[in-house]
Formats: sequence, C-alpha cells, structure tokens
Amino acid sequence: MNKGFETPQAAEDAFYDAIEDSDLNKLMATWAPGDDIFCLMPMRPAVTGRQAVQEQWEELFSSVSEVEITVSHMSWLETADMAVHLVQESVAFGTGGQPQPPIYAVNVYRRTTEGWQLVGHQNSPAPPPLNMAPPGP
Amino acid sequence: MNKGFETPQAAEDAFYDAIEDSDLNKLMATWAPGDDIFCLMPMRPAVTGRQAVQEQWEELFSSVSEVEITVSHMSWLETADMAVHLVQESVAFGTGGQPQPPIYAVNVYRRTTEGWQLVGHQNSPAPPPLNMAPPGP
Repeated sequence: MNKGFETPQAAEDAFYDAIEDSDLNKLMATWAPGDDIFCLMPMRPAVTGRQAVQEQWEELFSSVSEVEITVSHMSWLETADMAVHLVQESVAFGTGGQPQPPIYAVNVYRRTTEGWQLVGHQNSPAPPPLNMAPPGP
Repeated sequence: MNKGFETPQAAEDAFYDAIEDSDLNKLMATWAPGDDIFCLMPMRPAVTGRQAVQEQWEELFSSVSEVEITVSHMSWLETADMAVHLVQESVAFGTGGQPQPPIYAVNVYRRTTEGWQLVGHQNSPAPPPLNMAPPGP
C-alpha cells in the first residue's frame, strides 16, 4: 500500500510535481486507496474510487506532455485527520508556454496511520478577470 | 455565535432548505464563523471569510426568488472533526420549473464544540450528458 506524507502540504507538492512530470505512478502514490476518493476535472464527469481516478489521469497524461503549474493558496482548513486546501492553479503548456486563465481547485487530504494522502480533487473554472472584458467601441 | 448541528448531514439539509427558502439568516446559521470559510459559485470569483460569503448569498437571493434543489450523494469522506460530501445538485427555478442540467458540489463541514457547521461550498459544472449530444445527420 502507498506510504502517506508527513503533512497535507507535502502530499500537495508531490501531487503537482507528478502532474508536471506526467508520472502516473508518482501521481497515484499521492492518492489514498479506497472507493470514496473523488476527482472532478474541468468539464469531465466526476469520478470516484481509485480505479476510475487512475484511468482518468492516465487518459489526461496521454494527451498532455509538458505542463507547468503555479499554485497559490487561498484558504486552508485543517483538523487533526483531514485538511482542505482552496488554491488557484495557473497552468502553462509546453516550455515557455503562455499561462492559461487560472482555475480554482479544492484538494482534500486525509490522515491515516500511514500519513497524509489525497482523497479529493475538484477544479472549477474561475471567471474571466475584469481586465479581460472586451474593449469598448 | 451560531449553534452547530448534530451531524454534517443535518447541516447540509439546513443549508439546502435555506437556499430553497431564500432565507439569508437561516443560511448563514449553517456556515461557521471565521476568515477561512470559502464559497465558489459557478463562474463567480471564489470568496473567503464570513462577510464575503454572506454578501455573495445576499446578492444571489436578491436575483432568484423560487428554487427547488434535489441533492444526490456521490461520495462521503468523514473523520471525527471534518466531513466532505460530493453531491450532484439538480436545480429547478420557479414552481414546476424545468430542472437545469445538474451541477456538482463539494460541501465541507467542520465540527467544533458547538457542533457541525459548513466551512466550504464549491460548485463545478457537470459535462452535458451523452444523450444531449447533437443528433447525427
């Protein structure tokens, strides 16, 4: 079984590193086992359970090769055994790629005797920034 | 200060009841106090902190009068002091209104000595169902 991480933040760092590396094994090592874990990627059906989560990331990694993600924290809710991080992800595709409009993510971590592991990831589109409104006539 | 609820589910029921009633006081009684609570409504900026959460719902209630919400559970993650519910919301506006396409929501609850209270709510659009694909030629 996967080893957990010492803190929710360590699990989060490993999660985004694995996405940047398109490394499915490294990515799945950040997720907890179990049928109750969930993942909601933009405009895709929500999936629950380790098998479905793994298949979704496998498909994503097969279509994206290089990606750079900058994560900024907006809010942390942490208790002894569960942590919820609201973050903003800025994603750029390819080397020197232009960053896409940021998207929100909520990452949920749970602590077992193994340590902290990811149990939920949800993306939401962020609204276009005010300065991207169409110019006037 | 607000009294909490006996279970995360009781807080969730009260939350959706308050939305159906457009009752801001009842709604804010389901949210915990604090600067770390967060709310992400569809295509709106994420807001954090009780004041901003309240202002957002006040604005929403001023533009929507009658709404009916059917909630189905997809996954529950619960520990002693925190609970995360992944649900699908089917919303219908007005009496006998047609249900809109369902949207996903993650609701986060935290337990204090007061009981369980809502600390996070995030909506994500669900992809269109397969049977809504445009018909072939």
